[in-house]
Amino acid sequence: MHQTFDAAIELNLLHANQEGADYNREHFNEWGITCLNIMSSPGAGKTVLLEQTLAALKDKLNIAVIEGDMTTELDADRLRKYNVPVIPINTGRSCHLDSKMVAGGIHTLAHQYNPSDFDLVLVENVGNLVCPAEFEVGEHAKVALLSVTEGEDKPLKYPVMFQEADCLLITKIDLAPYLDIDLDRITANVRQINPKVKIISVSAKTSEGLKQWFAWISDRVIENSTKQIATQV
Amino acid sequence: MHQTFDAAIELNLLHANQEGADYNREHFNEWGITCLNIMSSPGAGKTVLLEQTLAALKDKLNIAVIEGDMTTELDADRLRKYNVPVIPINTGRSCHLDSKMVAGGIHTLAHQYNPSDFDLVLVENVGNLVCPAEFEVGEHAKVALLSVTEGEDKPLKYPVMFQEADCLLITKIDLAPYLDIDLDRITANVRQINPKVKIISVSAKTSEGLKQWFAWISDRVIENSTKQIATQV
Repeated sequence: MHQTFDAAIELNLLHANQEGADYNREHFNEWGITCLNIMSSPGAGKTVLLEQTLAALKDKLNIAVIEGDMTTELDADRLRKYNVPVIPINTGRSCHLDSKMVAGGIHTLAHQYNPSDFDLVLVENVGNLVCPAEFEVGEHAKVALLSVTEGEDKPLKYPVMFQEADCLLITKIDLAPYLDIDLDRITANVRQINPKVKIISVSAKTSEGLKQWFAWISDRVIENSTKQIATQV
Repeated sequence: MHQTFDAAIELNLLHANQEGADYNREHFNEWGITCLNIMSSPGAGKTVLLEQTLAALKDKLNIAVIEGDMTTELDADRLRKYNVPVIPINTGRSCHLDSKMVAGGIHTLAHQYNPSDFDLVLVENVGNLVCPAEFEVGEHAKVALLSVTEGEDKPLKYPVMFQEADCLLITKIDLAPYLDIDLDRITANVRQINPKVKIISVSAKTSEGLKQWFAWISDRVIENSTKQIATQV
C-alpha cells in the first residue's frame, strides 16, 4: 500500500474499498457465484494457470473471467480462446484491482449475460506481490502463486500476501532442478507466516499438481453454493 | 500507483515526493555521490546482483547500500558481508521506497560516516514492477531487472517501469534453455516501450554480462562526477 502523508486518507480508502467488496460479494451470493481472486508477482504463471483451469473445468462449471492488467488485452485475448466470457479491466497506472473496478466488471457481466447462469468468476489481478493483498474485491477466497524461481525468502519478505492467501500454488516446479533452491524451505517459510493455507505445488509444463488444484476449486464452489443456498432458505 | 478516490491527493503525493527526491539529489551532488535506484519484481535477482557488484567494485569505488524491504533485514544481512555500509529501510505495508524514506537513509549515512567519502549509493527498492517506477528517490539513474522466467510480454504489460529505466538487465539467462522463451522477443518488446534504454543480459550463475554491467556503473560514476564538478566550478 502506498504510504501517504495522511494515515486517515489511507484508512478511508481501505474502508471505501471494503464497502465496495461487500457489495460485490452480495451480488455474487445472490447469483450463486463463487469468486476467486488470483494474485502473484508478474510472471509467476497466473494466465497459464487460468488457461489450463478453463480447459479442464469449463465443461463442468460455468466460468467467467475478470482480467486485470495495467494496459493491453494480451492476457484477455489468451483466455478468450476458451470460449468463456472474459471481461478486461485496464487499471492504467494503478498497481492492483480494487472493488470499484471489479464492480464495473460485474455490471458488464450482468448486462451481457444472465449472471445466475455462472458458477465461478475467476479474477486475475495485476501482477504484484504487495498491494493486491490489501484490496478485497468481493472474492470468497484468495489464491496466491509463488514461482520457485522467485526464491525461498519471499513469504518472509512479503508477508501480507501469504497471510491473506487461502490457497498457495508453488508454480514452475519443473524448473527446481536447475535452481539452487530448497522446496521444503519455501513451504516452511510459508507455514511460518500462515499455518493454515492450503499449499499445492504445480507445473504447467508437466501438469503435476493440477488435478489437486482443480479439486480445490470444485470444493470451494460446492462449499460456497451450499452456504449461499442455506442463507437464502 | 494506488487509485485513490481523489486524483488531487495523488498529484499532491507525487509532487511532495518529487520535492523530496530533488532535495536528496542535491545532497548526493554536494557529496560527489552517484545514486542508482535498482528495481524489479520480487525474485528477479536484485540482491544477488548487488552481492556480485559489491564483490567486484568495492575496492575500486566507495559504495554504500540503502536496502528497502517491507519487513526483515534478510537482504541487508546478505550485503553486510561485503563490509560496506548497508542502511536498511523497512517500508512496512508500503509497496515502494519514497523520497522521504530514502532521506532517512541518507541522514543515517551522513551521521555515521563522512558522506563525501562515498562514490556510489545503490538503492535496492521493494520488489514490485509497478509502483517504484513512479516514485523518484533522488537517483541519477534507474536500473530495472527482468528475469527471463517472467515472460516476454512484461514490458508491454508493465510499461511504466520500462519507460523509466535507463538500464535494463535481463537476468537469469542461464535458465533460457529450459523455458519456452524467445529472448529477441523480450528485447523487441522493451525497445517498443523504450528505444534508448541500455539492455544487458546477465547470469549470476555463469557471470555472463556482468563485466558489461560493472562498466556501465563505472561510466555513470565518471559521467556524473564530471557533471557535479562542473556545476561546482
